[in-house]
Amino acid sequence: QIDSSRLWDTIVSTAQFGGTPKGGVKRLTLSVEDKQVRDWFRQACEQAGLEVSIDSLGNMFALRKGRDMSKPPIGLGSHLDTQPTGGKFDGILGTLAALEVIRTLNDAGIETELPLCITNWTNEEGSRFAPAMMGSAAFVGDFTVEDVLSRKDAAGISVAEALDSIGYRGNKPVGAQPFTGFIELHIEQGPILEAEGKTIGVVDHGQGVLWYDGKITGFESHAGSTPMHLRRDALATLSEIVLAVEKIATELGPNAVGTVGEAVIASPSRNVIPGEIAFTIDMRSADATIMDQLDQRLRAAVAEIAPRRKVEVALDLVWRKEPTHFDPALVGSVESAANALGYQNRRITSGAGHDACNLNTRIPTAMIFVPCKDGISHNELEDATQPDCAAGANVLLHTVLSLAGV
Amino acid sequence: QIDSSRLWDTIVSTAQFGGTPKGGVKRLTLSVEDKQVRDWFRQACEQAGLEVSIDSLGNMFALRKGRDMSKPPIGLGSHLDTQPTGGKFDGILGTLAALEVIRTLNDAGIETELPLCITNWTNEEGSRFAPAMMGSAAFVGDFTVEDVLSRKDAAGISVAEALDSIGYRGNKPVGAQPFTGFIELHIEQGPILEAEGKTIGVVDHGQGVLWYDGKITGFESHAGSTPMHLRRDALATLSEIVLAVEKIATELGPNAVGTVGEAVIASPSRNVIPGEIAFTIDMRSADATIMDQLDQRLRAAVAEIAPRRKVEVALDLVWRKEPTHFDPALVGSVESAANALGYQNRRITSGAGHDACNLNTRIPTAMIFVPCKDGISHNELEDATQPDCAAGANVLLHTVLSLAGV
Ligand SMILES: NC(=O)NCCC(=O)O
Ligand SMILES: NC(=O)NCCC(=O)O
Repeated sequence: QIDSSRLWDTIVSTAQFGGTPKGGVKRLTLSVEDKQVRDWFRQACEQAGLEVSIDSLGNMFALRKGRDMSKPPIGLGSHLDTQPTGGKFDGILGTLAALEVIRTLNDAGIETELPLCITNWTNEEGSRFAPAMMGSAAFVGDFTVEDVLSRKDAAGISVAEALDSIGYRGNKPVGAQPFTGFIELHIEQGPILEAEGKTIGVVDHGQGVLWYDGKITGFESHAGSTPMHLRRDALATLSEIVLAVEKIATELGPNAVGTVGEAVIASPSRNVIPGEIAFTIDMRSADATIMDQLDQRLRAAVAEIAPRRKVEVALDLVWRKEPTHFDPALVGSVESAANALGYQNRRITSGAGHDACNLNTRIPTAMIFVPCKDGISHNELEDATQPDCAAGANVLLHTVLSLAGV
Repeated sequence: QIDSSRLWDTIVSTAQFGGTPKGGVKRLTLSVEDKQVRDWFRQACEQAGLEVSIDSLGNMFALRKGRDMSKPPIGLGSHLDTQPTGGKFDGILGTLAALEVIRTLNDAGIETELPLCITNWTNEEGSRFAPAMMGSAAFVGDFTVEDVLSRKDAAGISVAEALDSIGYRGNKPVGAQPFTGFIELHIEQGPILEAEGKTIGVVDHGQGVLWYDGKITGFESHAGSTPMHLRRDALATLSEIVLAVEKIATELGPNAVGTVGEAVIASPSRNVIPGEIAFTIDMRSADATIMDQLDQRLRAAVAEIAPRRKVEVALDLVWRKEPTHFDPALVGSVESAANALGYQNRRITSGAGHDACNLNTRIPTAMIFVPCKDGISHNELEDATQPDCAAGANVLLHTVLSLAGV
C-alpha cells in the first residue's frame, strides 16, 4: 500500500507552482512555472535514488534499477504541465503517484526484477503549442524532433526557444529510452465513474482526435453605415460554424464531441464589422468511421456557409490522432490489480487524449482512471478525493509490480 | 474655391502618422500617432494665424478672428483619430478641409463678420475608449468630465492617463468654447451617393445608437471528455446571440443595423470548452421607436438563450444616443451652397455617429457628406476621390461664409 497522506501532501504542495487564486493551477508547458515544478521533480527523483535523464524535447526519465538490467524498464508516469484554467490533478496525479510508488518500494526495501522508469512528458496539454501530447508523439516517431522544435506559441516563441529559456533541452536522443511496457494513472476527466460509484476505471480505449486551424476572411466595415445585406461578417460566419460543429457532433453522438475552443478577431472594435478571425476546432470519437464523418460533415457545412456569406474560410487539419486500443494483456493486469485490491471498477473509454495513447502505438500500454468531481477538468475547480487518488496509486503499484516482477 | 491639390497633399502627407502597409491609418485616440498628428495640426493652425486652445479632454480649438468678436464663432471640423483598421478620410477629411477653408480665406484676404473656429474632437471613434464621440459628448454635457477621464481602455489605461502621456490635457474648461453654429464635412461611409452618382449628401438626420457590454459565464470543461449535453459553452452561447442580433436588425430593417464587433474568450485553449466571454453589441436606427424594439427583442433573445444553455449572460446598455435631427436652417444652408456650386446632391441620413450629432443637441448644426468608394469605411481600403473631397470642402467654404458673413 502506498502512503496516502504523503501522496496527497505532494499533490497539494506542488500545486503552488503556478497556483491560481481559485485553487487551480496555470502551468503552461515550458513556462517559468513548469521549470519550477520540473526542478522540484528532478530533485525529488534524485532524492529517491533515481537516475534522471532529459531528452532534447524536455521529456524527463527517472530510472530505478532492477535486478535484471538487460531488460527495458516498466514505464509509469504522466505530465506536469496544465491548461490555462487547469486543476491540481490532470497529469499531475499520474506523475506524482509514480514517484509515490518508487518511494513506497524504497521504504519497503523491494527490488524489482525489471527496472522502473518514471516519466514527465513535455506539452501534454497542447494549449501553448499544438498538438497535444507532443513529447510522447515525437518519442514514438509520429513527428520529427525538428518539426516539434519549430512549433510556435501564440507569441511566436518556438518550442526550441522555450526549452532553452528554461534550460530543459536535454541531450538524450528523443525515443532512445526503451520500455517493456507503460502504465499511466490519470483522473477520468468525465462523469462516469463518479455517477456509477466506481473507484477505478480500467481504460481499454481512447478517443481519436481531429484538430483544425481555421481562418475566416470577410471584410471590415462600419457597423453603423453598412446595410445588413451588404456585410461580409467574419464573426457571424464563425457563429454559424460553431453551431454547426455542435450540431454535427450531437447528431453523430453519443460517441462524438466537437468544440471551438479558440477564436480571435484580428482588429476588434465595437463599431467595426469583424473582418478576420482565427479559430480552432477539436472533434473526437473513439470510432475512426465516425471521425471520418465528423470531418466530412464539417467540411460540407463550411462549404455551404462561406459562399453564402461571401467570406473565405480556410480550414487546415493540423492533427489527426487515431482511436486507441490499449494492450489487452496490460489492460487485464490493471483489472486484476483493481480486483485483487477490492476496488469497484469498470472498463472505460478515455474521452481525453493521453501520452499513453501515443506510447501504445509502439509499447504495450494501459491506463488507470480514478473519478474526479462532477467530471470537471480543464477547470480550476477540478477535484478528486484523497482516497480515490490513493486507490489509483495502489492499483498503479500492484500493476507495475506484476509487470516488473519482484 | 479651395485649393484641391493642397487639400489632397495634406490628406496624403498626414496619413503617414499611423500609416499602415495596406494604405490605411491606425491612429487610436491619444496614442503616440495621435500625438504626432495633433502636434502637426497645432503647428499648421498657428502657421495659418489661428489661436489654438485645448480643453481638459484634449479637444482642440483653433480660432480665426472675425470683424465682430462679440459673437461666437462658426465652428467647422471633425476628428483626427481612427479605427484600428481605419482609412485616410474618416474624420480626417473634415478636419483638414476646415484648415483648407481657412488657408483659402487667408490667401484671398477675406475677413468674415463672425469669427471661425476649427475643431479636432478627442476620441470620436470610440474604439479605444467607449463611448464614441466622447470629446463632443462631454462638450455638450452628456457626460461629466470626471466620468470621461476615468474611462479605461482594454489595457486599463484611463483617458486621464492617456491625455497626460501625450501632453494633451489642456487647461480650457470643457464646454467653454461658444459656437453660433457648427458644420462638419465627412465621407458618407455608406454606398448611397456613389450608387446614385451624387457628389454631395445634405445630411438631415443621423441614426441613434445603442451600445452594450456583454459577458457570458458558462463553465470551462474538457473538450474531449465532456459529453455534448452536459456543456455550458460560452462561445456557442455567443454564437446564438450574434445570429440573433443579425436576425433582429434584419427583420426590423431596412432602417436598423446590429453588429457584434468585439468578443474575447477569457482563457482560450483548443481543448477547453470556452467558459467566459466578454463581447460588445452595436445596434442603430434613425427611428427611436425601432431602437426600443431592437433593445426589447435583443433582451428577449438573451432571456431565452441563456437559461436554455445554462449560462449567465450579463448585458449592460452602456450608451444610448438618440437619433439626430439636424438644424433645418443650417441643413438648408448646406443645400443652397451645394446647389449654388452646381453639385448633384440629395438629402441623406447618416448611418454613422458624428461629433456633429452631439453638438446638434446644443448648437445649430449640419453636415456635408461626400461619396466614398463602395461605401467602405472603418477599413484600410477606405477611399474617396480628390474631386469629391474638393467638392465637399467647397460646400463647407460656402456654407461657412454664408453663416459667418463676409
Ligand atoms: N488528458 C488531457 O487533458 N489531455 C489533454 C489533451 C487532450 O485530450 O486534449
Ligand atoms: N463616423 C464614424 O465612423 N464615427 C464612429 C462612431 C460610430 O458611428 O460608431
